[in-house]
Amino acid sequence: MVSKSFLAPKSIALIGASNNKKKLGWQILSNLKAGGFKGKIYPVNLKEKNIAGLKAYPSVRDIKARVDLAVIVIPAVFVLEEVKNCAFKKIRNIIIISSGFAEAGAEGKMREEELKKLISKYKLNLLGPNCLGLICSACRLNLTFARAKLRTGGLAFISQSGAIGSAVLDWLHNKNIGFSYFISLGNKVGLKENDFFEFLARDKNTRFIVAYLEEIEEGGRLMEIVSRLAKRKPVAILKAGKTKTGSVAALSHTGSLAGSYRAVETGLERAGAINISNLEEMFSLIKIWQEKTKSENGDLYIVSNAGGPLVMTADLLEENNLALGKFSPELAKKLKKSLPEVPNPANPLDILGDAGAKRYEKALKLILGEKNVYNIFILLTPQTATEAEATAKVIGQLGKRYQEKLICTSFIGGESLSKARKILRQNNIVNFAYPEQAIKIFGKFFNHQMKIKNLKPYSLSKNQLVQNRGMKDEQMDYLKSFKILKKYKIPAIGTTAVKGKSDLKKLKYPVALKMVGPKIIHKTDKNSLVLNIADVRQAEKIFKSFRDRGENYIVTQEMIKDGFEMIVGFKRDEFFGPIIMVGTGGIYTEVWQDIALEVDDVDYIRAQAMIKKLKIYPILKGARGHFGYDIKSLAQAIVNIARLARENPGIKEVDINPLFIKRKGAVATDVRIII
Amino acid sequence: MVSKSFLAPKSIALIGASNNKKKLGWQILSNLKAGGFKGKIYPVNLKEKNIAGLKAYPSVRDIKARVDLAVIVIPAVFVLEEVKNCAFKKIRNIIIISSGFAEAGAEGKMREEELKKLISKYKLNLLGPNCLGLICSACRLNLTFARAKLRTGGLAFISQSGAIGSAVLDWLHNKNIGFSYFISLGNKVGLKENDFFEFLARDKNTRFIVAYLEEIEEGGRLMEIVSRLAKRKPVAILKAGKTKTGSVAALSHTGSLAGSYRAVETGLERAGAINISNLEEMFSLIKIWQEKTKSENGDLYIVSNAGGPLVMTADLLEENNLALGKFSPELAKKLKKSLPEVPNPANPLDILGDAGAKRYEKALKLILGEKNVYNIFILLTPQTATEAEATAKVIGQLGKRYQEKLICTSFIGGESLSKARKILRQNNIVNFAYPEQAIKIFGKFFNHQMKIKNLKPYSLSKNQLVQNRGMKDEQMDYLKSFKILKKYKIPAIGTTAVKGKSDLKKLKYPVALKMVGPKIIHKTDKNSLVLNIADVRQAEKIFKSFRDRGENYIVTQEMIKDGFEMIVGFKRDEFFGPIIMVGTGGIYTEVWQDIALEVDDVDYIRAQAMIKKLKIYPILKGARGHFGYDIKSLAQAIVNIARLARENPGIKEVDINPLFIKRKGAVATDVRIII
Repeated sequence: MVSKSFLAPKSIALIGASNNKKKLGWQILSNLKAGGFKGKIYPVNLKEKNIAGLKAYPSVRDIKARVDLAVIVIPAVFVLEEVKNCAFKKIRNIIIISSGFAEAGAEGKMREEELKKLISKYKLNLLGPNCLGLICSACRLNLTFARAKLRTGGLAFISQSGAIGSAVLDWLHNKNIGFSYFISLGNKVGLKENDFFEFLARDKNTRFIVAYLEEIEEGGRLMEIVSRLAKRKPVAILKAGKTKTGSVAALSHTGSLAGSYRAVETGLERAGAINISNLEEMFSLIKIWQEKTKSENGDLYIVSNAGGPLVMTADLLEENNLALGKFSPELAKKLKKSLPEVPNPANPLDILGDAGAKRYEKALKLILGEKNVYNIFILLTPQTATEAEATAKVIGQLGKRYQEKLICTSFIGGESLSKARKILRQNNIVNFAYPEQAIKIFGKFFNHQMKIKNLKPYSLSKNQLVQNRGMKDEQMDYLKSFKILKKYKIPAIGTTAVKGKSDLKKLKYPVALKMVGPKIIHKTDKNSLVLNIADVRQAEKIFKSFRDRGENYIVTQEMIKDGFEMIVGFKRDEFFGPIIMVGTGGIYTEVWQDIALEVDDVDYIRAQAMIKKLKIYPILKGARGHFGYDIKSLAQAIVNIARLARENPGIKEVDINPLFIKRKGAVATDVRIII
Repeated sequence: MVSKSFLAPKSIALIGASNNKKKLGWQILSNLKAGGFKGKIYPVNLKEKNIAGLKAYPSVRDIKARVDLAVIVIPAVFVLEEVKNCAFKKIRNIIIISSGFAEAGAEGKMREEELKKLISKYKLNLLGPNCLGLICSACRLNLTFARAKLRTGGLAFISQSGAIGSAVLDWLHNKNIGFSYFISLGNKVGLKENDFFEFLARDKNTRFIVAYLEEIEEGGRLMEIVSRLAKRKPVAILKAGKTKTGSVAALSHTGSLAGSYRAVETGLERAGAINISNLEEMFSLIKIWQEKTKSENGDLYIVSNAGGPLVMTADLLEENNLALGKFSPELAKKLKKSLPEVPNPANPLDILGDAGAKRYEKALKLILGEKNVYNIFILLTPQTATEAEATAKVIGQLGKRYQEKLICTSFIGGESLSKARKILRQNNIVNFAYPEQAIKIFGKFFNHQMKIKNLKPYSLSKNQLVQNRGMKDEQMDYLKSFKILKKYKIPAIGTTAVKGKSDLKKLKYPVALKMVGPKIIHKTDKNSLVLNIADVRQAEKIFKSFRDRGENYIVTQEMIKDGFEMIVGFKRDEFFGPIIMVGTGGIYTEVWQDIALEVDDVDYIRAQAMIKKLKIYPILKGARGHFGYDIKSLAQAIVNIARLARENPGIKEVDINPLFIKRKGAVATDVRIII
């Protein structure tokens, strides 16, 4: 739990403060003073009496006054001792900048384990180790060794990577973008992203949160916190390490379609966070949110002095799920009158290559004057008649007048536009080097806004926290698996064990015979499934051949007449809990990879939404005069599977493949449960 | 045909030269002089006697000497007269800068039609109208009104958009990138991109060609020229206007899967050109090709002082079809010895956050020293110990030493890196603002290099040039369609007309009955197909119901026992000729959109490659113990369809859907031919 005294402390002990300018301890102290921190600073150094004009203490124990926060920046070998000293002095808020822990070999790993014990023993709020530190602009607090301008702003930035953190600080400085908090997580031994999300939810200076994360260990808690926060303060997360955990295609069985990165994706979607793909996107999004985190509608209006870039920009709208607004007849008429050069004014609007600042102004004033226009994107390329700087000024003035509207530009070209770009920056107009960058981020911005409208808070169930680490990966007995389906009201085909030939005589033919057992995962792989067995004689022959192959667990099933093969199931993700899946099944599962995922609180309505996302949906619904399939039963099966997942933490994975969906009803004919 | 006298003229008449500095005629003349053009310049102006120190002529007719090229930059209304004067003076090379033609309403369109007549009457080589002009760096020739540094270089840039052209000139100037030719195509009334591709193929200064195009009217000729050129000089084309021509999903019948943009894509692939997606990619590719257009292999080596960006970069490799090289055991050993800080040196190599220039140097020297290492990508983020400028110098020196290797960087951050970036630029090291930009373009670069290795020249067949404009879009008679399949050895199901009930008695049951006719495109839509009719009685009933629905064209077909439904066909693209298609067929065609395309010269080997590209391929091949299908027959059907397309210019479109592919053989059960 991060308290105000941690993120906005009134008194700070700096353990490892130094007069040696080459040391981080000097840099941090100098940043702290340069930033204008108003609270008390207590340098701690064994040898020095006085550091940078402040009285220094040999140990934190020697400080008499109350200390809100201790910052430790000494060699790793001395860190644990100092943590104990802090605990003795009742300092529970600690930042460890020092590296030399889990990231640094076996010795470091042991040290980190010791540190973990101290955290829980003394109930410490500990940030780091191996981090850049912390910056709070509003409280004039720079507790990092990086140079940074303490300019306040709506952004709170959280980084698990120090390198990304320093690149971001550098970039924010360059772009004149302020921020409320900058938090470097380091090894996340104590405090984690979720602790800061919780704090920032309440922080009045923070308007939006962007995080770079390499692991999300508490996905369930993240969904709980962020789903409550994202409507008020948008959250975007860049999760690195996507392919490391293994791509969909590379994994061997269908259950792993819900592989680990897909789990992160599904979890972030449920949390209502924007899932950022890369650094460029991250910086673009910060630029936009810095100006505006909401827009009244998602209709885009585009004005350009260049046809080519306009065509290319329009090309990208569809794939980014963006819509162009339409000019009202009145607006079109006004534009036609005001811009006689432009034959038929329509959105996107080409005001032609010879447009100077005046023509931009006329067009933009009329368009921005419209009530329903909220998002305008202005393109400019340097041509003979182009007045880039004057145009930038016009746009800057309009930006001030229409504060509530989102006005972005892309001035495309090289050096000749640098002055114009500076004018835009000074006027807080977001400029993109290329229009495609803008369109991509508009897509994320507007689509996220639509999605979170219906976002409901996620609540952690008890079992969600059960992790599958250490599970044995055993396949559950086949008949028992069918019993579990029955318990959760998932209709399944009649399945009985066949122990000897006498059992075969009692069956109603035609039947299917299956050889089942933990070693046969894809039954159709190994000729272990025979369908449409017409009579006892044929059945006996097959039964014998199965027996001969050394397998002694054989079942018989009724035959299904028709239906469409789907896959339904779940896989318990280590961090995000059960990920529920529905998709096109049968032997085509891996070919089409047509699946939709949800987290464990999926309800009937969201289950239907999952089905609608599938490519196969038009067929399920009934296309071209063909009858449709019973989508309601399928949705109900999804909901039931989710309940099964929630109520059975000991079950790691369920794959029903195929679940035959029929004109009326659905029926599972095969299931694999991993415990 | 573009001749040397066009692109490197010795004498130029500038019609519309002016002493008025506001006029384009003055700007062009001043650019021409400033560039240091060594040839003769003849200004033409009705009123002035002397322009910028040169004798001026009232008309081009008054010039006595031979003139290689005329540039016209006067109001549109006077242009045609001057073109005639040029023809009289035997000047056949003309550039019209002036606008006011097809882009400018009805009057302009008429003027352009007149101009076309003059071109063919006088056999003119005419560039424009409505263009920026032409620059040839080697001949010190700037025939545009844009400011540009005449720095020679391997790039030839062709633009159909003036706005893109000026943005590119501006950008090249800013990045210090030279070029051989800059060509602005304008309205392409006379000379088109292909004419310049032909010329540039022979131009010794041009190492690579990049073009921005909005229409490609002569796709066949483009494939012919570029497929001969691309192995020696790589070609990249950005084709704008992708969604305008209609997306795959929006169109109503399966034939349009091979819609117009897909045709461009297929054609560019066949030509061996890189298909560029957007401006950012275009600029990135120019940066890379500027340094290197080839690499000995495609293995990538990455060195970084930052773990986060390294993870993110690695994430992108797979989706961009890139491979990491592997350190040899010897190299790993040397690195371990030289860099004791780095525990287990492997590619990608994290040299840790506290790496200074020296550590970069040690790592890079060892890696670049390896014989098989050709492509190295160096990441840097500004951290405390980072020496960005010194590191940039080290990289610059190594770049000079290893000229044959591709060395690129991404220095990620803001202002604090600008000096280091400048050093990289001065040393011709390509730097990317973000690593993802680099990875995307590496993907295109290496994959293109692989692809063109086996590129064969494309040859235009006579019929390829037949365009489908003005075709009537009529459906061919059903039985006649089957006869055509037979003629081209595409096996089809026995199909006969049923004229009355008496015909039904002669059939071998079970059969299928189909109601066919031009209005029924998707037969299964309208209950116009009944399968598995067991006997005459049932057949008569269905026959009657078809009759009652007012259709009088009914056929009967044998029943197919098993097989997998594919779609095979072609669609004649207006510009690229027949686009041959194979894909997953039946009612799933549109759901899966699993198709592969080729142009009309597809042979058996490339037909097999098409099939391998399909997602359904593992099933066709026989997955998991299932039998496979007869892929050879399918490939042969593709080849036969291509021949059908080549030999029948009157046929616009053929859709065989389904073509049942069986364990042995294939058989078409339905076909739609559009003439």
